[in-house]
Amino acid sequence: MDFRETIAGLVRVWYGIDALGRDEPNMGSRDLATPKGFLFSTAGAAIKKPGRRDLALIYSEKEALMSGMFTTNKVKAAPVRLDMKRIASGKGQAIIVNSGNANACTGRQGEEDALAMTKLVAAALRLKEKSVYVCSTGVIGQPLPMKRIASKIDGLAKSLGASTLDDVAAAIMTTDSFPKVVSRVMKIGKRKGTIAGVCKGAGMICPNMATMLSFLITDINISGRALDRAFRDAVQGSFNRVTVDGDMSTNDTILMMANGLAENDLVDERSRSFSLFSKGLSDVAGALSRLIVKDGEGATKLVEITVKNAVTKADAEKGAYAIANSLLVKTALYGNDANWGRIIAALGYSGITMREERTDIYVGRVKITNKGLSTGSDREAGAALRSKEVSLTVDLHLGTAFAKVLTCDLTEEYVRINAGYRS
Amino acid sequence: MDFRETIAGLVRVWYGIDALGRDEPNMGSRDLATPKGFLFSTAGAAIKKPGRRDLALIYSEKEALMSGMFTTNKVKAAPVRLDMKRIASGKGQAIIVNSGNANACTGRQGEEDALAMTKLVAAALRLKEKSVYVCSTGVIGQPLPMKRIASKIDGLAKSLGASTLDDVAAAIMTTDSFPKVVSRVMKIGKRKGTIAGVCKGAGMICPNMATMLSFLITDINISGRALDRAFRDAVQGSFNRVTVDGDMSTNDTILMMANGLAENDLVDERSRSFSLFSKGLSDVAGALSRLIVKDGEGATKLVEITVKNAVTKADAEKGAYAIANSLLVKTALYGNDANWGRIIAALGYSGITMREERTDIYVGRVKITNKGLSTGSDREAGAALRSKEVSLTVDLHLGTAFAKVLTCDLTEEYVRINAGYRS
Repeated sequence: MDFRETIAGLVRVWYGIDALGRDEPNMGSRDLATPKGFLFSTAGAAIKKPGRRDLALIYSEKEALMSGMFTTNKVKAAPVRLDMKRIASGKGQAIIVNSGNANACTGRQGEEDALAMTKLVAAALRLKEKSVYVCSTGVIGQPLPMKRIASKIDGLAKSLGASTLDDVAAAIMTTDSFPKVVSRVMKIGKRKGTIAGVCKGAGMICPNMATMLSFLITDINISGRALDRAFRDAVQGSFNRVTVDGDMSTNDTILMMANGLAENDLVDERSRSFSLFSKGLSDVAGALSRLIVKDGEGATKLVEITVKNAVTKADAEKGAYAIANSLLVKTALYGNDANWGRIIAALGYSGITMREERTDIYVGRVKITNKGLSTGSDREAGAALRSKEVSLTVDLHLGTAFAKVLTCDLTEEYVRINAGYRS
Repeated sequence: MDFRETIAGLVRVWYGIDALGRDEPNMGSRDLATPKGFLFSTAGAAIKKPGRRDLALIYSEKEALMSGMFTTNKVKAAPVRLDMKRIASGKGQAIIVNSGNANACTGRQGEEDALAMTKLVAAALRLKEKSVYVCSTGVIGQPLPMKRIASKIDGLAKSLGASTLDDVAAAIMTTDSFPKVVSRVMKIGKRKGTIAGVCKGAGMICPNMATMLSFLITDINISGRALDRAFRDAVQGSFNRVTVDGDMSTNDTILMMANGLAENDLVDERSRSFSLFSKGLSDVAGALSRLIVKDGEGATKLVEITVKNAVTKADAEKGAYAIANSLLVKTALYGNDANWGRIIAALGYSGITMREERTDIYVGRVKITNKGLSTGSDREAGAALRSKEVSLTVDLHLGTAFAKVLTCDLTEEYVRINAGYRS
């Protein structure tokens, strides 16, 4: 996938359409394309510490269709539990987000606080309470500073439009080292539509930060069923294929809003434009998820792991994750060591169907293992590892299923960040 | 379990019996109690590099009963596959071991080499080939330097008795920072019997070293069935409860030999002395496995994780392993941070039955989480973490099952060792 980071190293990624209507990175402009009818505001409530904006409000002028996916961790933060109830309606109009405190493991008080945040926003914007969603990210197990948060809600409502999507991306950061924004403009029928998104990540559950949040917005007119299907496909192929440290947070949430204000002919599952929309959304989600891995705590490289020709899809995924989560593989990648013994050992203990004597392994295009044996190309493979983006491919030669997973290397810096975070 | 390390900080652990026949650490002697009728020799074959003894031979003067357990990794080293066939006989008389090269992922040549090692030993000692077992540990994917190894076998056979169990423990080391030996003398009926063992570990699969080997020997006269049962129980409660980095090697092997030369009345499963033997063996295996974790690459502390009052034993184990293998928990332990949010999140994603609002967590005796909420004792708990040996206990308050797992913390040094090992 072609994506670019252009401002301050790694800040934003976006796509535009050229004069002929073809998708291409919109490199000429500093202005990020934003879907019509969405407004943003941000504020500082000193939730963890003063001096930064740690509250963000996303608002659609028209009630939007909504899809959501949530952590499968059994320990779910209060806002996650609330949003999971509300998403059943398939509709919504605003999302209030705070960083600095996850409102997780906070008991009844946490539930009341999550509810109160949505109530305050609903009152300030004259919305039904159920149209408001809430997300929190940050330290686990501490009550939200609700007084400070509550005092900022009216101001957020009044200043809608004063902030950009970039500001929202910055406000939801925790240990992230850069804000993550992606936007894509596409021709849909005779209209121009935009899909944009922000996310925050870092460690999967960073410190005791509860981690992955993403908000996707579009003005494309689409049916609820089609939106939901495209959304689930996009998440499955992107955020659900990413692992930094194998830990899964109590707060992981992805919400998508579609307000239809591009006024294109309705996209439904049978429309020709559905696959276009689906592809566009997958690209945005894919670009966002790559930014999360790139910003993995202490990471020096992005690693795409492919397991192919497995007996089943489940085997391919399990094998790819076993490699991606092996500390020995991750440290070898950091050390630019094409240590295929660790890769094949991870496959061996993953529980998948595999045969050592059929397994081929590649680093980039360099074949390091042929039918389970060394090809002697360790040196070329080591050189291929000296890159910011690396691919590892395992060919099991047993079936036709494949899976890709994105991960990063494991460094001393990861240990330092995570050993020192709370102190 | 009471065990001591007495020589050079962390070298050996042993038990003796006092004048009254009670088990107690035999601290008074530098001589390690060794079971009767076992002889050892070691030699240097420059397998990985010159300058150290990297071959060891363990020999029983009388054919011994043998039990064995092997890695469940689907990628098994050639010597593992050979031993797995031979162990079916339940008998054996010698074990030849090399460090520096794992003879794993070495194809047909590897199989021939493993077989050749046992043939050469059998010829030198005038044994049946099937009475000889072979183990290798070290780098994966490189052929054994068979000429150098073969040239040392006769010398090993001739010098049997010239080396001690300590020498064997030193010869099988890879990235281990100290040799690991445990011995226990016990009264069994009217006789004195000894159970001793050596092991090597470090990272679970250290670098691309293939890791965990242990050899247990006893002169106690015991039936094959009783030996096997006690052996399996002992391994289950010790080596199978240990995790450094969650990786499982291609070479993990534990072999046990019992030659009966203590001449006690035969211990069988119905003997009163069976539980005594079983307990003694479990203590030896437990002490050895603790030494492995203590010597975890870069580790600064040994951590015992207990999950109790789970619905099922499987849940208790899964929960304990999820905590033990969480990078976020391991780095927090290193940073002396009683970060219970990471612990409860690991339980949440482990897939076990748990209820956040019932979960209590303790660091040592300090309760840090009560019914899923902070007790505010982070500071005392942090102080409790500043120790070489730490316990974490999770009480799920759902059932009666429990499990214990031993692990260590994750440090920058682990990353350095594993990123730099081959270069």
